[in-house]
Amino acid sequence: MEISVLRNVLDANDVIAKENRKAFDAHGCFVVNLMSAPGSGKTTLLERTLRALDGRLKAGVIEGDVQGSLDADRLARLGVPVAQINTDPHFGGECHLDARMVWHALPAIELDGLDLVFIENVGNLVCPAEFWVGEDRKVMMSSVAEGEDKPLKYPLMFRVSDLLLLNKVDLLGRSDFDLARFRANAARVNPALGIIELSARTGQGLEAWIEWLAREVETVRLS
Amino acid sequence: MEISVLRNVLDANDVIAKENRKAFDAHGCFVVNLMSAPGSGKTTLLERTLRALDGRLKAGVIEGDVQGSLDADRLARLGVPVAQINTDPHFGGECHLDARMVWHALPAIELDGLDLVFIENVGNLVCPAEFWVGEDRKVMMSSVAEGEDKPLKYPLMFRVSDLLLLNKVDLLGRSDFDLARFRANAARVNPALGIIELSARTGQGLEAWIEWLAREVETVRLS
Repeated sequence: MEISVLRNVLDANDVIAKENRKAFDAHGCFVVNLMSAPGSGKTTLLERTLRALDGRLKAGVIEGDVQGSLDADRLARLGVPVAQINTDPHFGGECHLDARMVWHALPAIELDGLDLVFIENVGNLVCPAEFWVGEDRKVMMSSVAEGEDKPLKYPLMFRVSDLLLLNKVDLLGRSDFDLARFRANAARVNPALGIIELSARTGQGLEAWIEWLAREVETVRLS
Repeated sequence: MEISVLRNVLDANDVIAKENRKAFDAHGCFVVNLMSAPGSGKTTLLERTLRALDGRLKAGVIEGDVQGSLDADRLARLGVPVAQINTDPHFGGECHLDARMVWHALPAIELDGLDLVFIENVGNLVCPAEFWVGEDRKVMMSSVAEGEDKPLKYPLMFRVSDLLLLNKVDLLGRSDFDLARFRANAARVNPALGIIELSARTGQGLEAWIEWLAREVETVRLS
């Protein structure tokens, strides 16, 4: 019974996600759904990324939060188009974005001329993994501060992601984080998952991420 | 429509939470629902806490995870009674514990003789805040690594909690975390919220937490 209800919810979600997809395609936008636990560093990474992309690729952001517009405000300062989704009060205080929420946000962002749209999901390692919102790629972030056991405890997120960003590598050596074990745990859940180590705070490793984005935008454009 | 569905779900939850409460009361157990984002350090704190309590208060743990028993295994090594709840596959992979899940776990833990039961919730700052599972106190943990904006982004969790543990204070000065601003943000959302600063890794600040537990156990016992 519960399984069939869940399937209906996800089927309904995918119908709307396809509409989002059509809108992104109509404007030639490559879309990244960026997911992580709260406080992993998604917004700090986006700040760095938007600065690093300057002139190379034009990017916009759809920002998902339970409440408030702190992150959207931070990103709008960089002069990029930003649309804010609040799951509370409009969408029941949900702990994740779904396709319907993104669909409601689309009129608030000018897609024309954008190469790239980042959808910053609500900080949560569980439910965001279940909802396709129309993106081309799912990118997840984990951080050194969160410990090396996360792939085993939140396996679905690591399984559905196309790329794993390991953030806060500036804390390596200052914590008990075991990098080799983290990589082994991630590989156990998703052997094909690529990992980029970086620090959104210091900028270390950022170039590999920017290269990945540029390559993926190009790949999708040629397909 | 959605609001009425939500209310029914929460009403049904509270009926079962009261049953849990009766079971805890029948054995004189003080119960803490421990909540945080993934990787904040709940299990590491519990390891330290169980060692520090040794002989003073007898404690057990109900451990909630989406999958696996990594944390339960860590805690069982300390020789305390531990029951594991996996939300996947038995409870639809839910991102939080509800009263029904705890009720199912009760036969797996011997409450007799326990002064204190910790319920370690699924790592998530959103949905766990909505479900009373029969606990006496809600304790939440935030970490220096997660940034000072969390109270404003996940306000319900900070609003419903009886105590806030700020973990990983050993990283203060090694990150951009602004302690005064974090305290101001927390006070804005919940002016009455007490805060204990600690490091589950180094043990710094642990005594204040142990004292809080001992005092609360005593208060509830006398009431």
